[in-house]
Amino acid sequence: MPAKITEVVVKDIRFPTSLEAHGSDAMHTDPDYSCAYVIIHTDSNDALEGHGPTFTIGRGTEVVVAAVEAMTFHLIGQDVQAIFDDFGGFWRKFVADSQLRWLGPEKGVVHLATAAIMNALWDLWAKREKKPLWKLLVDMDPEKLVACVDFTYISDCITREEALAILKKNSDTKHERESFLKENGFPAYTTSVGWLGYSDERIQKKCQDALKDGWTMFKMKVGANLEDDIRRAKIIRQEIGYENALMMDCNQRWGVHEAIEWMKPLAEFKPKWIEEPTSPDDVLGHAAIAKALNPLGIGVATGEHCHNRVMFKQFLQSGAMQYCQIDSCRIGGVNEILGPANGQEMSSVCEYVDHLREHFVYPVEMKGPNYLPPTKPGYSTELKPGSIEDHLYPNGRVWEELRKEGKIKNSFGSFSFLCFNNFYKFCIFLFGLLFHFQLLSLGHLCITHSQTGL
Amino acid sequence: MPAKITEVVVKDIRFPTSLEAHGSDAMHTDPDYSCAYVIIHTDSNDALEGHGPTFTIGRGTEVVVAAVEAMTFHLIGQDVQAIFDDFGGFWRKFVADSQLRWLGPEKGVVHLATAAIMNALWDLWAKREKKPLWKLLVDMDPEKLVACVDFTYISDCITREEALAILKKNSDTKHERESFLKENGFPAYTTSVGWLGYSDERIQKKCQDALKDGWTMFKMKVGANLEDDIRRAKIIRQEIGYENALMMDCNQRWGVHEAIEWMKPLAEFKPKWIEEPTSPDDVLGHAAIAKALNPLGIGVATGEHCHNRVMFKQFLQSGAMQYCQIDSCRIGGVNEILGPANGQEMSSVCEYVDHLREHFVYPVEMKGPNYLPPTKPGYSTELKPGSIEDHLYPNGRVWEELRKEGKIKNSFGSFSFLCFNNFYKFCIFLFGLLFHFQLLSLGHLCITHSQTGL
Repeated sequence: MPAKITEVVVKDIRFPTSLEAHGSDAMHTDPDYSCAYVIIHTDSNDALEGHGPTFTIGRGTEVVVAAVEAMTFHLIGQDVQAIFDDFGGFWRKFVADSQLRWLGPEKGVVHLATAAIMNALWDLWAKREKKPLWKLLVDMDPEKLVACVDFTYISDCITREEALAILKKNSDTKHERESFLKENGFPAYTTSVGWLGYSDERIQKKCQDALKDGWTMFKMKVGANLEDDIRRAKIIRQEIGYENALMMDCNQRWGVHEAIEWMKPLAEFKPKWIEEPTSPDDVLGHAAIAKALNPLGIGVATGEHCHNRVMFKQFLQSGAMQYCQIDSCRIGGVNEILGPANGQEMSSVCEYVDHLREHFVYPVEMKGPNYLPPTKPGYSTELKPGSIEDHLYPNGRVWEELRKEGKIKNSFGSFSFLCFNNFYKFCIFLFGLLFHFQLLSLGHLCITHSQTGL
Repeated sequence: MPAKITEVVVKDIRFPTSLEAHGSDAMHTDPDYSCAYVIIHTDSNDALEGHGPTFTIGRGTEVVVAAVEAMTFHLIGQDVQAIFDDFGGFWRKFVADSQLRWLGPEKGVVHLATAAIMNALWDLWAKREKKPLWKLLVDMDPEKLVACVDFTYISDCITREEALAILKKNSDTKHERESFLKENGFPAYTTSVGWLGYSDERIQKKCQDALKDGWTMFKMKVGANLEDDIRRAKIIRQEIGYENALMMDCNQRWGVHEAIEWMKPLAEFKPKWIEEPTSPDDVLGHAAIAKALNPLGIGVATGEHCHNRVMFKQFLQSGAMQYCQIDSCRIGGVNEILGPANGQEMSSVCEYVDHLREHFVYPVEMKGPNYLPPTKPGYSTELKPGSIEDHLYPNGRVWEELRKEGKIKNSFGSFSFLCFNNFYKFCIFLFGLLFHFQLLSLGHLCITHSQTGL
């Protein structure tokens, strides 16, 4: 059914999660989990809307909203099927806007805005096909899938033809893997045991509860105080033993040398990885850290703040990243994930945080510690209309009430009440699935190519 | 004199330069030279204001304005002398805002906004000291200068102590270099001969005129069509000979392999550098290009879109950049330039474009093809009040008139009339001076360190 885009609406939605400090870390001490949320309307009789978020943590969401508004003129009047027929080409035209690209290019606010818009388009496409997004991607003809990708700046590592060959090669076992995943779900790890501010007793209790619930992989925050980190790691290992996995995350706190020195005494607790040990821009720094920590059996994980495919390419080229944590809300939507960047173990495990579930039209379903693939048409990131309305910033009901109760001093204050959390991990999750089905070995090719190339 | 910040105003100022396509290149086909322009007011009796721009090229300037507005709460009520006494610490606190950093961190729109704000603070400081900014920096005690810098994420290449040692070591010859520069000025090159759209005759004429005016260094745009590039390079070399320097600029048009292949047949025209051969994020790609082009005598220049000190660090570490083109409107203001990044030849030459002169309170002064150091207090980037008012977007006089005349179809149209140009090169220029005086060898140390480190 033909459909032209008639309107693009963008909303500033914020959940006051900082009131209970859930999700806080050493660098992001008071996150209000938020999003710039895009809704695409068309003139079609089917009344389908594309909904797409990009994730933010409070202040500045209005800046991303302004960026979306600056970009919508590229969408109005476009035929959606024409977009989907050459989605890679459309994506390139979009990110290469001759004036807006100066504000990036392909990074920061304009790229977050691109992500929200592209995610909304993918949602619309999947709804039109009456499939969950992962299934749309899985069923897609390899040629068509590759046509969604812009290979600009990455063809020294992977070309359209090479990507196509990989997809074709792996297509035989696709149905088998799909059945396995539907049956077993997709493994997740929990971060709930290791927030920085927890007391020792709370850590113990959280570990015991998580073990009872079947969790086998645990992540703790580190980086504020080394002695504390050692003590907390000891407690967690006492509870979970060494047959379960432990990961550590310092959220960009360290310089390169500092990261290496800090991790040496923590090596006895056998962390699987150290996450974001330094600036997310420092490819060579991560490579130096990975090289130094490799003999200790510790890998480097990063990607949450890695801003585009060109950066992922380099992280993979240089051996700077052993665990790839790509985020479809940070880079330019699904299209950019499809391209170059996926790590060796990207598809093996996804982070799990369960807050904010209640606000989704189709919340994520778990089977023990595994994610089950979504079943409803679309991206499954659509928020309930009531949740959107209540959390509009600054004048939604929730914010008006907080203001009346004196829990917000001004629009910039930090505060302490209520509790919600995390939905962007869910977007990441979806792409774990995607890789599992289609694209697992693209990353390997990328690495192989580049290690010989430089 | 004590002074607290009472108000921060930010304006969206745009010059319709696209009407005559000056400054256009392969990627930025219709730039309207613009800026988010910050004015800082204090409660001091001296009535001094800090003026600072960040450069943009039209659409999306309002997004940078929104980012500045999201950040101003960090400034209101602050004592300016307390900021300047620990400028590095203030800078870090500013860019590490626990919620806003999610939108970068330290890149894109939020970093452009940071640049405008920091530049306005530097302007205010210099005005308070009654010195041009370069002179404030030159005269500054090395300890104080180093205190302006945030060494986070770069201390694996250069520490505070190492930077201090370099500054102290070079201080003996400072006055000598200052006198030389005041007398002779600072060398510039011209880009006016080589815009992509010029006819062969126009190129010839432009070369002849530039030679008459004393120019010895010329830059041409390349990358749209190889045969054209060869023909145009031939014409320019016929006019300027081989005793003058020729540089080439492709403005991010190529992939890595493509850059190398494209430049091979152009090597016979002996370009000094190829500028922005690929994505500005691709450190390893630039390194591969530099390695391949080195035997042909061609260096790699980049930096205009290099977004922060962490990126510059890596470009210098990996030999990816032989000519460093840092921009105080792209990275986080003067503070971030002072830190890690400066290339071997950064201080040897600055780009020259002469448009928009008439809008500056203190326009740049030339001595032949050399820049003379500014003499008036402040940053010398202050625009005339009338120019600001006339070019406010979307309702300043100039824009209203263009609309009446039907020369703008809508706020996104491209058009063809009028002529202004370039002031951000001027900001870059100022920092060429700075390096010349104080910091020339920091880059060498950075490179030396890193090449052994990885």
